[in-house]
Amino acid sequence: MKAQIITIGDEILIGQIIDTNSPFIASLLEQNGVKVASIISISDTKEAIGEALAASINTFDVTITTGGLGPTKDDITKSVLCDIFNCDMQLHEPTYKFIKERLEGIGIEFNELNQSQAYLPADAEVIKNNHGTAPALMFEKNGKLLFSLPGVPFEMKQMVKDSVMDIIKSKLSLPIVYHKTAITYGLPESELAIKIASWEDNLPSNIHLAYLPSTGRVRLRLSAISLVDDVEAVTNKLFIELEAILGSYLLGYDEATLESVVADILTERCETLAVAESCTGGKIASLFTAMEGASLYLKGGVVAYSNEVKVSILGVDESILEVHGAVSEPVARLMAEGVRKALNSDYGVSTTGMASPMPNTVKKTGEVWVAVSSKEGTISKQFFFCELRDINIERFSSAAISMLRDELIRKKR
Amino acid sequence: MKAQIITIGDEILIGQIIDTNSPFIASLLEQNGVKVASIISISDTKEAIGEALAASINTFDVTITTGGLGPTKDDITKSVLCDIFNCDMQLHEPTYKFIKERLEGIGIEFNELNQSQAYLPADAEVIKNNHGTAPALMFEKNGKLLFSLPGVPFEMKQMVKDSVMDIIKSKLSLPIVYHKTAITYGLPESELAIKIASWEDNLPSNIHLAYLPSTGRVRLRLSAISLVDDVEAVTNKLFIELEAILGSYLLGYDEATLESVVADILTERCETLAVAESCTGGKIASLFTAMEGASLYLKGGVVAYSNEVKVSILGVDESILEVHGAVSEPVARLMAEGVRKALNSDYGVSTTGMASPMPNTVKKTGEVWVAVSSKEGTISKQFFFCELRDINIERFSSAAISMLRDELIRKKR
Repeated sequence: MKAQIITIGDEILIGQIIDTNSPFIASLLEQNGVKVASIISISDTKEAIGEALAASINTFDVTITTGGLGPTKDDITKSVLCDIFNCDMQLHEPTYKFIKERLEGIGIEFNELNQSQAYLPADAEVIKNNHGTAPALMFEKNGKLLFSLPGVPFEMKQMVKDSVMDIIKSKLSLPIVYHKTAITYGLPESELAIKIASWEDNLPSNIHLAYLPSTGRVRLRLSAISLVDDVEAVTNKLFIELEAILGSYLLGYDEATLESVVADILTERCETLAVAESCTGGKIASLFTAMEGASLYLKGGVVAYSNEVKVSILGVDESILEVHGAVSEPVARLMAEGVRKALNSDYGVSTTGMASPMPNTVKKTGEVWVAVSSKEGTISKQFFFCELRDINIERFSSAAISMLRDELIRKKR
Repeated sequence: MKAQIITIGDEILIGQIIDTNSPFIASLLEQNGVKVASIISISDTKEAIGEALAASINTFDVTITTGGLGPTKDDITKSVLCDIFNCDMQLHEPTYKFIKERLEGIGIEFNELNQSQAYLPADAEVIKNNHGTAPALMFEKNGKLLFSLPGVPFEMKQMVKDSVMDIIKSKLSLPIVYHKTAITYGLPESELAIKIASWEDNLPSNIHLAYLPSTGRVRLRLSAISLVDDVEAVTNKLFIELEAILGSYLLGYDEATLESVVADILTERCETLAVAESCTGGKIASLFTAMEGASLYLKGGVVAYSNEVKVSILGVDESILEVHGAVSEPVARLMAEGVRKALNSDYGVSTTGMASPMPNTVKKTGEVWVAVSSKEGTISKQFFFCELRDINIERFSSAAISMLRDELIRKKR
């Protein structure tokens, strides 16, 4: 079973928005055994939409389009769908009623633009959008399916999870597919490849390995398509071999991140964390609080962006700031110790560095000092990253969380 | 002039990574008058790459591919390029030397996988990668250009900015294109469309309007392709008319965000900010510190995730927490006032709310209290958003920064 995802709209083609819809849809399709052969982004012209949709419904078992269903004037997907499936637009009463009630309920006027959203291609199966005013549409032709979904990510995602995948599963007979991804941190791709070369060479022929590098980490994904059930057991056995090869370079699996691993350990041990961030400016705290359950281990944090706050809240000695500068080992250590004390936590983690060039300093951009403090004492380390501001902030944050992880793992032994 | 961007790699097709490369390339192409007709993501098989590249070089003036140039075994783009352009792979001495020196300089072994990266198609023009080991390649055929770039975003972006765009401009004769985008906040797309309907109807025929909705805001982009120079002036005049219609719903232009507008005002007035975040958990601070120059106005922040920190660092009265609960107006006000005092800033902004369901509370998920404190007093407001955790955190943060913006604008009058 093969699928194509088509995103409609000039905003992607001129680079003004990042397409997060396709990865979401692709991931769910793959998990259910539908291979995504291609993802294309096209312009919202009648010609481009017509050509792409007509080709796709003839070629692929499943076509999913996003975008082009909004109330404003640049949205023309519905009329193209009427052309392709040779039907007219008609008022869809339940949709009319739903949109009217929804908008009036939150005090938004039910205007003629919104009314137009209740006119839908007559041959479409209408899929209710509980979170917005544009419903999704489903067409079937020669056993092939086409779904037209709104482009607003939140609305689209809910519909795919709640309805679209179930419809696909009920209409197509799908194979068993198993994906599992090991997350590694701290080894560059080429060193990793050498390290696991013989393991890789001995993989069974029905299991495919992919390297997925991103900032600071490489994910190793095994994909197995099989008609028997034990593919999961075979894959898991391969990963146990991999764990022995990689040791602590292997963070975890699938959705594991540095912060989720740390969160799990702290939660399990009923220990608490506080962070003192200078150059990372709240990034580390926000990585932890982005995950549910952060209140179980995170006391909080201090964004000590100015030296004044380092002194007043974290208790860093002013004379040390003067002698060593803010980006220094003693300041990082005092920050970690200070935040642990001020917020009464088991662990304190700090960062102080330079994410991008600053005037009047001899410090290098990309330099960061990280410290981890606990009742056993404080450790500190310097890192260098030579990247742009946003990547430096990400790398500084990862370095700090990784240092905390190492410390937590060390204590477990 | 038309272009196609092709991203190579299963990691996009199975939804494991989000393609941020294409928007970056698309944006630069568009700014320089090259229309991106489509963006496609394909599998890293010999067949898929061969078919897509051969079709693209025959159809489009510019083809840009990313990915498939790494050292590991799943990368085969180079051999497909040799097939298409009918040439052999050969050792490229400068690349060999550069990779060797680069890797040895940072203590990474120059292994045989890395050596293979110096073998390149003989007919390619080699574009040096200063930030990684895979150089970019350029091919020319019948006046059409094909660039093969590495997939690592940081490396790719630097090469596009430093070399690729200049090569395209030198080889093709490009029209004048002008894009400008107004950023609106606080009006849903359909209300905005009604409000600006007559302005939209009167747009000149060579200027195209697009609505670009995203969480909490809608961007309005005007695109004008013209062979005369005054298109910029005409577009700017249209936006001045729009400003009169939209008032403070219009945040700014192009890269403007709520936080950049606030940052500009605070910097200009030499005023300072401190943030006290409960449910947003460092997000607001990290939005400000993601921008260069935050040290000019941001004293810092307190992530008061636990009640203990609200009391100990921000001075919130324990009895008020007990009576009203953490998610309440009095607590939000005391947090904003407390952080302003503790960090000695002109403004204090606070958030306290529920980003996702919590046990043992009568509070609703999506409820947030926001307060802004200054020497003139403290204002506070309640908001409701019914979304997933990450979107709620984003919306809470925007609501808080927007309230601060309103307060700053009010004071300017």
